[in-house]
Amino acid sequence: MSSVDPRPLGVFDSGVGGLTVLRALRARLPAESTVYLGDTARVPYGTKSAEVVTRYAELNAAFLLSLDIKLLVVACNTASAVALPALRAATGIPVVGVIEPGARAAAARSRSGVVGVLGTPGTIRSGAYQQILAVARPGLTVQAQACPLFVPLAEEGWLTGDVPRLVAERYLLPWRGTGVDTVVLGCTHYPLLRGVLSEVLGAEVTLVDSAEATAETVARLLAAGPTRPAPAGKGEDRFYVTDVPDRFLEVSTRFLGTRVVHAEQVDLPLG
Amino acid sequence: MSSVDPRPLGVFDSGVGGLTVLRALRARLPAESTVYLGDTARVPYGTKSAEVVTRYAELNAAFLLSLDIKLLVVACNTASAVALPALRAATGIPVVGVIEPGARAAAARSRSGVVGVLGTPGTIRSGAYQQILAVARPGLTVQAQACPLFVPLAEEGWLTGDVPRLVAERYLLPWRGTGVDTVVLGCTHYPLLRGVLSEVLGAEVTLVDSAEATAETVARLLAAGPTRPAPAGKGEDRFYVTDVPDRFLEVSTRFLGTRVVHAEQVDLPLG
Repeated sequence: MSSVDPRPLGVFDSGVGGLTVLRALRARLPAESTVYLGDTARVPYGTKSAEVVTRYAELNAAFLLSLDIKLLVVACNTASAVALPALRAATGIPVVGVIEPGARAAAARSRSGVVGVLGTPGTIRSGAYQQILAVARPGLTVQAQACPLFVPLAEEGWLTGDVPRLVAERYLLPWRGTGVDTVVLGCTHYPLLRGVLSEVLGAEVTLVDSAEATAETVARLLAAGPTRPAPAGKGEDRFYVTDVPDRFLEVSTRFLGTRVVHAEQVDLPLG
Repeated sequence: MSSVDPRPLGVFDSGVGGLTVLRALRARLPAESTVYLGDTARVPYGTKSAEVVTRYAELNAAFLLSLDIKLLVVACNTASAVALPALRAATGIPVVGVIEPGARAAAARSRSGVVGVLGTPGTIRSGAYQQILAVARPGLTVQAQACPLFVPLAEEGWLTGDVPRLVAERYLLPWRGTGVDTVVLGCTHYPLLRGVLSEVLGAEVTLVDSAEATAETVARLLAAGPTRPAPAGKGEDRFYVTDVPDRFLEVSTRFLGTRVVHAEQVDLPLG
């Protein structure tokens, strides 16, 4: 068996948000090629039920498997919260979600023993972060808050000023005096609001970006095997979307750091 | 042929927003029975392409036709903007969208000759309101503004206070000094924000709710035939959703005025 494997990493998200995870993967593992699928015809997942999100996640995974990926990264918190067991059963390759890496990083970093989790209604309702944090560090206190307005704010590009600050203040008010010192950004869109979140929470509160923790987990898996890393060099990225690509391309820079020049529209078997 | 027809009116929307249209239908036509479908598994439509929205609208219409409806109300502005020709071709029954009634009411009411339209990105991008307003009253000036944050604000129930006011101010700033005296609320969620919109636009600006204008159009169609009204009495309402009904039921009161007690989840052929 070869010690390298040129096949790409597969990454899917409900839309553009997962590009923040792709960005972290590129930075940590520049030799790896990637295939990214944004399910823009059915975005967002965060307000939908576990049942529906699992069905969509399985269809996304089946498409990426058809492109011969060696490892699957579920770059969507909502799908990571509810669909990992189904995806692991269906794929036969390593499947990495964004929740466990983010939760473990937060559990390790908190000094006060009080960790906050911000996420979509679907992610928070699933209890996935709360559960993994409790296992990772027994005795930890967890404050969880759903923030449904953060995604549209990030997609609008309203990242600074009164509106995002007041929205953040309203969501974070219940945490006053709870001793939260570490906060997991439990949605791929939230790193864009890092500035305003830091302002409202205070600079002494550590913000944990699940994207970076996830890239670290993937790097460790490739180093440990049996899945092997890519040969030395620079990997290539391909992009697919389920709705017309215009808006995905338009806002991609804000999430990826560079602009996605081309994304192919695919018609997934929706049934 | 009987002069009455007890078959229900079919109404669909991408989610709960269309309940504001159902509310207007109930008030105007209390004898009519209705069947409502909220496509909550694929909400929202407003950020998706015309191609995808049309496909979803056709699937919704096919489901409602299978329940033997006599008339179809497309209670979603985005679907009304892009899918009416396809739906009319496919159904063989009268199809009423929310855009034409709202646009005609606004065109008739404006004194200044400057009308504003607020809607989702999909509705505004389609140009449907702009086009119908231009036909309804040549020479009219139209200001159109997409307001993607209004839907999540309405669904969160953040209807008063600083956040909705600042969001509205930001969207409406470009209208300063344009002479807009009549504004169409071109999304079924927006009537919930009527208070804050009035505050920001000024009490002298008329807000046109497409829901009421649409109910009036349906009433006129039933009076004129060939589709006939229901026999005297009180109609019944049935509700269907494509995702689990929990959240739909939970927020229904805010949109319908009364709580929806039961909604059946249906698995549409998604292909």
